Amino acid sequence: MEEIVKNIADINGVLDIMWILIAGALVFFMQAGFTLVETGFTRSKNTINIIMKNLMDFCIGSVGFWLIGYALMYGDDIGSFIGTPSLFFNTAGEMHNLFFQTVFCATAATIVSGAIAERTKFTTYLVFSLLMTVLIYPVSGHWVWQGDGWLTKLGFIDFAGSSVVHSVGGWASLVAAIMVGPRIGKYTNGKSNAIPGHSILLGALGVFILWLGWYGFNGGSQLAISGENVTAVSNVIITTNLAGAAGALAAMFYTWLRYGKPDASMTLNGVLAGLVGVTAGCAAVDNFGATAIGLICGILVVVSIEFVDKKLKVDDPVGAVSVHGVCGAVGTLCVGLFATDGGLFYGGGFGQLGAQAAGVFGIGAWAVATSFVVLFILKKTMGLRVSEKEEVEGLDIHEHGMEAYPDFRLNEH
Amino acid sequence: MEEIVKNIADINGVLDIMWILIAGALVFFMQAGFTLVETGFTRSKNTINIIMKNLMDFCIGSVGFWLIGYALMYGDDIGSFIGTPSLFFNTAGEMHNLFFQTVFCATAATIVSGAIAERTKFTTYLVFSLLMTVLIYPVSGHWVWQGDGWLTKLGFIDFAGSSVVHSVGGWASLVAAIMVGPRIGKYTNGKSNAIPGHSILLGALGVFILWLGWYGFNGGSQLAISGENVTAVSNVIITTNLAGAAGALAAMFYTWLRYGKPDASMTLNGVLAGLVGVTAGCAAVDNFGATAIGLICGILVVVSIEFVDKKLKVDDPVGAVSVHGVCGAVGTLCVGLFATDGGLFYGGGFGQLGAQAAGVFGIGAWAVATSFVVLFILKKTMGLRVSEKEEVEGLDIHEHGMEAYPDFRLNEH
Amino acid sequence: MEEIVKNIADINGVLDIMWILIAGALVFFMQAGFTLVETGFTRSKNTINIIMKNLMDFCIGSVGFWLIGYALMYGDDIGSFIGTPSLFFNTAGEMHNLFFQTVFCATAATIVSGAIAERTKFTTYLVFSLLMTVLIYPVSGHWVWQGDGWLTKLGFIDFAGSSVVHSVGGWASLVAAIMVGPRIGKYTNGKSNAIPGHSILLGALGVFILWLGWYGFNGGSQLAISGENVTAVSNVIITTNLAGAAGALAAMFYTWLRYGKPDASMTLNGVLAGLVGVTAGCAAVDNFGATAIGLICGILVVVSIEFVDKKLKVDDPVGAVSVHGVCGAVGTLCVGLFATDGGLFYGGGFGQLGAQAAGVFGIGAWAVATSFVVLFILKKTMGLRVSEKEEVEGLDIHEHGMEAYPDFRLNEH
Repeated sequence: MEEIVKNIADINGVLDIMWILIAGALVFFMQAGFTLVETGFTRSKNTINIIMKNLMDFCIGSVGFWLIGYALMYGDDIGSFIGTPSLFFNTAGEMHNLFFQTVFCATAATIVSGAIAERTKFTTYLVFSLLMTVLIYPVSGHWVWQGDGWLTKLGFIDFAGSSVVHSVGGWASLVAAIMVGPRIGKYTNGKSNAIPGHSILLGALGVFILWLGWYGFNGGSQLAISGENVTAVSNVIITTNLAGAAGALAAMFYTWLRYGKPDASMTLNGVLAGLVGVTAGCAAVDNFGATAIGLICGILVVVSIEFVDKKLKVDDPVGAVSVHGVCGAVGTLCVGLFATDGGLFYGGGFGQLGAQAAGVFGIGAWAVATSFVVLFILKKTMGLRVSEKEEVEGLDIHEHGMEAYPDFRLNEH
Repeated sequence: MEEIVKNIADINGVLDIMWILIAGALVFFMQAGFTLVETGFTRSKNTINIIMKNLMDFCIGSVGFWLIGYALMYGDDIGSFIGTPSLFFNTAGEMHNLFFQTVFCATAATIVSGAIAERTKFTTYLVFSLLMTVLIYPVSGHWVWQGDGWLTKLGFIDFAGSSVVHSVGGWASLVAAIMVGPRIGKYTNGKSNAIPGHSILLGALGVFILWLGWYGFNGGSQLAISGENVTAVSNVIITTNLAGAAGALAAMFYTWLRYGKPDASMTLNGVLAGLVGVTAGCAAVDNFGATAIGLICGILVVVSIEFVDKKLKVDDPVGAVSVHGVCGAVGTLCVGLFATDGGLFYGGGFGQLGAQAAGVFGIGAWAVATSFVVLFILKKTMGLRVSEKEEVEGLDIHEHGMEAYPDFRLNEH
Repeated sequence: MEEIVKNIADINGVLDIMWILIAGALVFFMQAGFTLVETGFTRSKNTINIIMKNLMDFCIGSVGFWLIGYALMYGDDIGSFIGTPSLFFNTAGEMHNLFFQTVFCATAATIVSGAIAERTKFTTYLVFSLLMTVLIYPVSGHWVWQGDGWLTKLGFIDFAGSSVVHSVGGWASLVAAIMVGPRIGKYTNGKSNAIPGHSILLGALGVFILWLGWYGFNGGSQLAISGENVTAVSNVIITTNLAGAAGALAAMFYTWLRYGKPDASMTLNGVLAGLVGVTAGCAAVDNFGATAIGLICGILVVVSIEFVDKKLKVDDPVGAVSVHGVCGAVGTLCVGLFATDGGLFYGGGFGQLGAQAAGVFGIGAWAVATSFVVLFILKKTMGLRVSEKEEVEGLDIHEHGMEAYPDFRLNEH
């Protein structure tokens, strides 16, 4: 009888771990999605550089998170602030967690890549990516997901990382895009010039891959599927899906109203905006809340991309600041509005909203401060930008010595 | 002891739902496959329009099926014909089913997109897609899958939707392609001109993605994996795989014989033809039956594409009518021939075949009639086609204000 | 009580089979990855031919392995050498194994495609692919994985197929590339000319897809996930991931040192090299061993590709011989060095290393001998190469009658 009880517990354990592994594989695949989105929305002459950055994010992240990042994030708490450092995480029976958290970590690093695309030095980028992986992301992540962090204690809710992953990446993107400066030709006579991407189809494929991966990203963040968890996971997958769909619909109709035509790149960003937005609350809101978050973020991402581009005059080729930073933050705040247990619109008062605001600002401040310090030092030492000649002729030839499309005749620009 | 029995039942429930969620994610990914197939097999100037249509199919489907479609399909039966309408499906513990059925629904809508590619108004398409999602697909689906529909009562078998999903999409495609009319330049002096697709490689990637998704489409349609179901699921995955492979081989060798060269686009369509064909019977036939269905559909799709193109003079850029309509119908009929329990060739008489024929014709008539009415009204109100100028210059520029490949030098055509 | 014990055993069985099916689907998807890598790294004029070869590998493999291959590999042992032949494998309850082994088999065949790309006759290739599937791969596979083969008896370890799958494909590639001869223009005046691939982005997408598939390839090779297996699977996924990442890092930094720039195609091959290398030992080594294997293979693949290209003057467009043959062999040997139980560096003496060497040479000799005989006969009968005119103008037009990119203006070469 005891044996049987143990057998059943073992089975539940297997179910949970199997789910985490499968979800982790889907999240890994998001790296391909990010690569396609970033390349598709930028020019062909920088394709190889972008491939290399995205690939290296994941490779550096895989090694770096094993080396030290996991310990800093999930190690025994020190002062509600950071995990106890230790090298080469190797707790037996925990490799599924290492895998799942590694693919999450790599996502945060990858976000920055898009915002500083087409003009950043590859070497500098590698160093920044490493520091993102082993320091910036794990520390603020510890505050929320380790269990003893100060944001956890405040009651802050960020189920799968609207703030922990996306906003961290988004605010680091903002700092990086400002410090690196706009691409040559982006702003002339105070006017913002559109620089069209070279393959919207591959960008769209990237968005589909990201959407697929998001089922793992949010669904896997339950970290279990046995027993009651399976209902929670199913709910998460539907809220995630509805928010992505609502984000696309909102962005499409909003651009249609504003520009007279349904804009494809904004609509694709609308999907991502909805998905980023619902990531914090996907387990706390119902289908209406998820749809509302998707609609809000789908419109917001259009407004924000225009604001960043035309008012702030910050050159963010793929809209990373708006998609991941702004929609990540607003999505996190929305938990305080739409959570069926504790949300303002569900009779919960301002308590949860306050906790959410604390998290948004705390994590945002951390991401801005640390990425500023890191990038400032990198600017003074290695330099952030490639030369003008390299940028004009393309990073592919200069940084990597090859072209992405040698068989095709290309337009100059 | 009772506790343990309940635990075991819970575990089996978790296994089933987990399988449905994973299969549903694979089916979702088929949207990317359809997008790539449709864009790859059409011209570059309409790429963005096709992306938007396919993306919107899924977004509208996600919202529409939650809103009303699921209730009409799976709600309590009214007159063996339709489910009881109710808004915003929210039965607790059923979100995995909503997810799985939503991704199926979106597939049916997406099929039509390909048949009317490169000349249809985007607004009109959106309305048609919505009606497909909330009315046309759910009603005939109710007849077969809800449990109390008239086709279920007749003994009609369509395990994963050769008719319920694919034929509905295929016959609606036929009606739509006729009513929209051929692309400019497709038929001159009574002769059909080939309009080659702009990226066979991305079309091929789409086919691989669809094949992958089909393991979820057919395997997931068992709606369970616990206990004996796991054997059924395994069998389904092998029959599915063999039919896809046999379809490709048949199409390749048949075109080789006919044209002197193995035709790549026909071979890729042969994969899809085999997969569509086996979808109805994948759980009812053995490996020989599945291979036979694949071979039949692989040849049939070539014959049918030529017939539709050259004899009917219906312009169907991706062969949707033949792949989904014809092979869906024939595959459904094949259950009456090859089902190991009840098939004509397995000693079962004509009973099953009769039921299959009833389903094929009933569902076909429904799809043709409803899509005709919808499209007729749309034609008289919003119009179906873009202007000649828009079509010649490409829908991307006119409908969406951007180009898909601005970096590449393109041929005019 | 007995009932409950049986229920629990059933559940564990379901878990195992479900894992095998999911892993198998991921391995299937690797076919898309191979297609993209091979097309991306070769010229646009041969795109359709490559699609067709890769698609046919899988279609022929699916039918051929069911027909006879599975029996030769896993049937009752005859003389420690081969399985008992029988046609149309149909053991009830074993279809998940047929599926999983089929997708493995197709991988071995696909590897050869890349090494002889851009100049091989399509018909000849199809025959070779069939023989690979029904004879060459199953026999040496039997030696290792059936349980009674001579290499199993020697204690040879190849968990997921560094040798059984990859080296077999790699050595067959070497023989085939030599016998087919280099592409026109590859070697002039004794100098090797680089022939750049036409879409590095799609090649990179292929690598991401392969990496994703490898979690299934190695993780699924546990053939179970219930009970203690889940820990083993988790470990395998982490060792696999670390080796891929280390392979990419090693290749990138090594090319950076050697050529002055981080080479993208070598880095992408570094990922594959690390993954191939760790495939044999992924369940026998710890994270340090996996990282070491990745680093070794990441450097080795660069050295080997240059050696094969410049010294041996064997034209292998995608580096298949080096990635799959050399790294597969070295990775297999590394089990003798790094296995935590029995590896030389872990105090295990030379025993395991000897068994590994026996396997590497035995399997290598088999692959070389059989592919030589097959290709020699094919050369004397059907011929191996297309005509000079066909090769120069592209196999797409001549072998398949269509172009891959009719909308794009291409450079001649």
